[in-house]
Amino acid sequence: MKFYQTWQARAIRPTGPSSWFSAAVPGNIQYDYSQYMGWGNINYADTAEKFRETEGYMWEYRTTLQYDSIPGYQAVFVSEGIDYRFDILIDDRIVLEHEGMFSKVEVTLDDCAGCELLVRIHPHPKSPKAKFEDRDQAAECVKPPVSYGWDWHPRLLVSGLWQETYIELRSHDHISRCEPFYELNDDFSRADIHFETDCPVPVQIELYDPDGLLIGSGDHFVIENPRLWWCNGQGKPELYTYTAHTEGDSVSGHIGLRSVKLVMNEGAWKKPSFFPKGRSTAPIQLELNGRRVFAKGSNWVNPDIFNGHIDEFRYEILITLARDAHMNIFRCWGGSGINKKSFYDICDRMGIMVWVEFPLACNNYDGTTHYLEVLEQESSAILRALRSHPSVVMYCGGNELFNSWSLMTDQSLPLRLLNKLCYELDRDRPFLMTSPVYGMGHGGYTFYDPDTGKDVFSLFQSSCCTAYTEFGVPGITDLENLKKIIPEEELFPIQPGGSWTLHHAFGAWGEKRWLCMDVLERYAQESLDSLEKTIALASWLQCEGYKAVFEEARRQSPYCSMAVNWCYCEPWITAAGNSLITYPLQPKPAYYAVQSALRPVLASARIPKFDWKAGECFHAELWLLNDSPETVSEIIHASIRIGNTEYPLLTWETGTVSSNTNRIGPTLNWVLPHLNVTQFTLCLSTNTAASSEYTLCFRSDKPHEETRQLNV
Amino acid sequence: MKFYQTWQARAIRPTGPSSWFSAAVPGNIQYDYSQYMGWGNINYADTAEKFRETEGYMWEYRTTLQYDSIPGYQAVFVSEGIDYRFDILIDDRIVLEHEGMFSKVEVTLDDCAGCELLVRIHPHPKSPKAKFEDRDQAAECVKPPVSYGWDWHPRLLVSGLWQETYIELRSHDHISRCEPFYELNDDFSRADIHFETDCPVPVQIELYDPDGLLIGSGDHFVIENPRLWWCNGQGKPELYTYTAHTEGDSVSGHIGLRSVKLVMNEGAWKKPSFFPKGRSTAPIQLELNGRRVFAKGSNWVNPDIFNGHIDEFRYEILITLARDAHMNIFRCWGGSGINKKSFYDICDRMGIMVWVEFPLACNNYDGTTHYLEVLEQESSAILRALRSHPSVVMYCGGNELFNSWSLMTDQSLPLRLLNKLCYELDRDRPFLMTSPVYGMGHGGYTFYDPDTGKDVFSLFQSSCCTAYTEFGVPGITDLENLKKIIPEEELFPIQPGGSWTLHHAFGAWGEKRWLCMDVLERYAQESLDSLEKTIALASWLQCEGYKAVFEEARRQSPYCSMAVNWCYCEPWITAAGNSLITYPLQPKPAYYAVQSALRPVLASARIPKFDWKAGECFHAELWLLNDSPETVSEIIHASIRIGNTEYPLLTWETGTVSSNTNRIGPTLNWVLPHLNVTQFTLCLSTNTAASSEYTLCFRSDKPHEETRQLNV
Repeated sequence: MKFYQTWQARAIRPTGPSSWFSAAVPGNIQYDYSQYMGWGNINYADTAEKFRETEGYMWEYRTTLQYDSIPGYQAVFVSEGIDYRFDILIDDRIVLEHEGMFSKVEVTLDDCAGCELLVRIHPHPKSPKAKFEDRDQAAECVKPPVSYGWDWHPRLLVSGLWQETYIELRSHDHISRCEPFYELNDDFSRADIHFETDCPVPVQIELYDPDGLLIGSGDHFVIENPRLWWCNGQGKPELYTYTAHTEGDSVSGHIGLRSVKLVMNEGAWKKPSFFPKGRSTAPIQLELNGRRVFAKGSNWVNPDIFNGHIDEFRYEILITLARDAHMNIFRCWGGSGINKKSFYDICDRMGIMVWVEFPLACNNYDGTTHYLEVLEQESSAILRALRSHPSVVMYCGGNELFNSWSLMTDQSLPLRLLNKLCYELDRDRPFLMTSPVYGMGHGGYTFYDPDTGKDVFSLFQSSCCTAYTEFGVPGITDLENLKKIIPEEELFPIQPGGSWTLHHAFGAWGEKRWLCMDVLERYAQESLDSLEKTIALASWLQCEGYKAVFEEARRQSPYCSMAVNWCYCEPWITAAGNSLITYPLQPKPAYYAVQSALRPVLASARIPKFDWKAGECFHAELWLLNDSPETVSEIIHASIRIGNTEYPLLTWETGTVSSNTNRIGPTLNWVLPHLNVTQFTLCLSTNTAASSEYTLCFRSDKPHEETRQLNV
Repeated sequence: MKFYQTWQARAIRPTGPSSWFSAAVPGNIQYDYSQYMGWGNINYADTAEKFRETEGYMWEYRTTLQYDSIPGYQAVFVSEGIDYRFDILIDDRIVLEHEGMFSKVEVTLDDCAGCELLVRIHPHPKSPKAKFEDRDQAAECVKPPVSYGWDWHPRLLVSGLWQETYIELRSHDHISRCEPFYELNDDFSRADIHFETDCPVPVQIELYDPDGLLIGSGDHFVIENPRLWWCNGQGKPELYTYTAHTEGDSVSGHIGLRSVKLVMNEGAWKKPSFFPKGRSTAPIQLELNGRRVFAKGSNWVNPDIFNGHIDEFRYEILITLARDAHMNIFRCWGGSGINKKSFYDICDRMGIMVWVEFPLACNNYDGTTHYLEVLEQESSAILRALRSHPSVVMYCGGNELFNSWSLMTDQSLPLRLLNKLCYELDRDRPFLMTSPVYGMGHGGYTFYDPDTGKDVFSLFQSSCCTAYTEFGVPGITDLENLKKIIPEEELFPIQPGGSWTLHHAFGAWGEKRWLCMDVLERYAQESLDSLEKTIALASWLQCEGYKAVFEEARRQSPYCSMAVNWCYCEPWITAAGNSLITYPLQPKPAYYAVQSALRPVLASARIPKFDWKAGECFHAELWLLNDSPETVSEIIHASIRIGNTEYPLLTWETGTVSSNTNRIGPTLNWVLPHLNVTQFTLCLSTNTAASSEYTLCFRSDKPHEETRQLNV
């Protein structure tokens, strides 16, 4: 029995406390305060800047405790999470002091109906060692660093009662824990399920199969030929369910039976072959139920600046979009922290594998005693909360910790602690210290790199990673959304400063990010004299760029086992960036390009570069990519379309291609005609859903001299 | 009060038990049995083969317990270690069952004087999954795998009461533990020492400074400006001492105050610089008391097949030799297991840093519940025994586990368990999962590699590792020692089969190891028609090869931070191999070459290759290497000596070179004259101890055509 309270809040400012204002729970107090102050839509113009003044504030939530006292029942104040350091007071007496937003908080209430409960939230921790007013300041706390500012996230430090918060009446036979564990035998023909419960009386447990049919009751079950949980595209994400009850209480949940391992990528043991000999790469090939699966998906970041505002509804839409784009994995980036429970429930249900990162990113987290203590407490809470989710396939210490901008190493005590805790609490799930580890790659993040002269096509074709766990191609947000964030007078011409900069189009990461006007100008064959033209060009590059990388990573399978772009969603409307979804829920054209590139069975072309000239010999290697668990065969007709003319080139009968296997086909060679166009399209047509098209840049005839040189 | 017993032993063979024979304790029962059987010297000819028949035997040790019963004292049977799985019986009643040779064993004795104590040792564990009769069989036990056979170690499975074993009378106020811990502040100006004791009464502790002067008594000491423990070459290995006593008992020990870290190698954060970007290398730069130290030393392997026979005396000689060769580190290779306590005491005293590996090597150690349990018990015992030694500077999971011949990965549960245990019991000491990790290199192991056409000079000059933690150049054992192991009639001509093969000259690792006749023939400029000539040639290559690698690794400092050759000692007399010491205690010529190459201040030449031709332009880069904590300067005269003629080339005044820093000097260029000789010597002469000489291969004039080509 749960009772939800009404909450008020106020800011304790240097100039004195604000009045009490109404506060949403779950929510974030900075948002409520902005409404109280009348700051308006934070997505618009420079509204987000106003929040800077709130950083040093203390905050208070208050409620008058209202619940029914029922004899034999214990009332408990419960919050699933409070961000970040806080005290709880009842009638001015401190009853709890706590640091950490991922631990469930409980306060036993005795005769407290009508009392005032106050949650006092301390100012955000800021490491005194930080050199800059940025994520550096998060290096001594277990708060996700993204709020301190990132190249795609404004600095906006949030806190508050971000998770569900209520008063619970608990019977004497309350079930405080009912947790399933299982073992699968080596050939997956048998599952042993047992339950651990914390309850003063015996708990009755019923287990149901994925169709809802009762299997039996008890606390230990043996299932012959269990129905396994599979990720999207490889089978059904089968879920068994259970209910556990005592006379006065009941809980329920689900179980997905699967084994998951990180095994060596195929071919990786062969390297290194020379002396002095180093280690072989670290394994990053996911093996699900004994089957090597190509992991394809996206980096999940917090889909809202205000983590308290995210609800099951939003998760459901976002995860459904991922499933429909044939994704099977989210890397939940450590900088954004841990999601609410419903996220993992939905991933369980939709077969989306989840790579969970602890809330560390791009910092040198200290091994101080205090930090290690809070990290141990918070990580243990996270592990206990997540370990029953079949979708959770691996843990990771955090993002890019073994790189020069973080300066952590294999010796760093926080990471050694995380490895230890994962071993103790959930040893059968893989654990990575960070991403990337040896063999993996992060980046690039642009369509064209002037330093190397490589576009995204050639960059990835010359790379050889076991996994591409971050890569991005930026685009500009559509006009309708731009108008929501950029005042009319600033919209065009596009220039640094003001809203374009605040919304990450300039100076986000390097001067030219994320709009990359220099790259757009490189490929523009007419003047970029309107916003519409500029958006269309950026969108074209983003779509073709993402297709190029995802398909190349798939072609590099089985040595390469994973492709996860940066990034999936965004926490507010960015003017330009690498995400596939515009805040809050709108797929970009790039989303559909990725959806196309991730189709399980796909005719694919390895095109060495994006930019072609009239008279040049175009070439492309044909492939049939098969990520499906089926054997397939295709007849692929390759042609080039220029304007309205289609030039047929060849037909390739692939023959039968086994499940989760690719096949290389012939290479096309064709001299591009001398036409005055700016694009041409390579078409790979099949009679099935495997057809592909690639629209590439065409440079029409140049003065005679130059054309002749190109044809040498 | 300790009472040592007299022991008898017997073999329980398939044909029935042997008679009881006298057994040495500490010792190995297989050795005692061989003496009883009259097998003779195991180093000679094929004697070692005879031990194969003993592999399946059970063994029994027996003694009649003799000790004084003193009122108020408890008698305890103690063995510091019994190899490997055993039961202890008193008058036929089992009182203890145990697996693992690194745990101390204790059995309380009540009224047992005159009783028979029997230790029954089970046959050696052999993994049923092993494909071959070799180290594979050790993959499910915590017994060092070397006894199962290695390329430089005969297969000879030992067991028994290998550590000190006695009856101890313990007073009621027996001190069962007195362990010092300390913290050093960041600038090393203050040490806080405290003691943890296990004793039913208060323990009185006195602390003395390194000169033996009493500092005070208590259980917590603050020392201002403490005298730090330094490794050999960087300062004194200062040791504080303590005594702890109760009325009836006392113990004593020493403390070396130092901090040790593994930090990133200088320059390593700059890489990788390209996208997709992987991690930076793993740190392997030892930082001792805040000072980056170039670690130079050797791989320590078991110095005797019979681990029970090794005593403090032998350790003392071997470690003194290492110290005198300017070494500051031993990598104690995991395949050989953990040494006896006196080893670490001597290293503490001599300033030799110790890299401790847990007993795993070159196998895929299973994550079975049983293995993990024994590993946890044994590793915990090892950690508790070693963590008070200042010489122990790091732990490592084992040897070459992340390579294709082992197939373990970062995900392997045994290694994750070791990380956890090291974190829990000794978190401030660095922990590596294995060697090599990313950035480090193992190998090569020959003077010349026909596959790449590179000799050891050019191989290492084209390598760029953070640490070279195994590399070797083989040589042949001297004639006197060869005669101890190879019957007269087999000595010459050298050929595969018989004693040469049994003693690792052929087929040890690949067909041609370790004698490498093909390499010797490559450099022989006269017929190898005598054993003496062959030995001399091999010795020359070994000496110049080891100098070349050690000096090159030093020149690659600070990016490279460690050079540790394979290997230091050997467990019996090998006919050919990479060690610097011939069994048991005789330095090879290569030992002196390494000693020369490791002098703290050294004039050094980067010579691109070993093999030069008349008329060719010889070149070599001059360096001054300074591993000392002093600022130095040298005047170096470079000359080439051919026969009795010395050709002066240049003089380089280095200027002042800071502590622990190298300086590059000029490059010599000199056309080699047309002389009919086979060697020439580059001499770098100083007025100090820094002078060096390199004796290189000279090919005299070839037919005119070829000489002209070389001079193009």
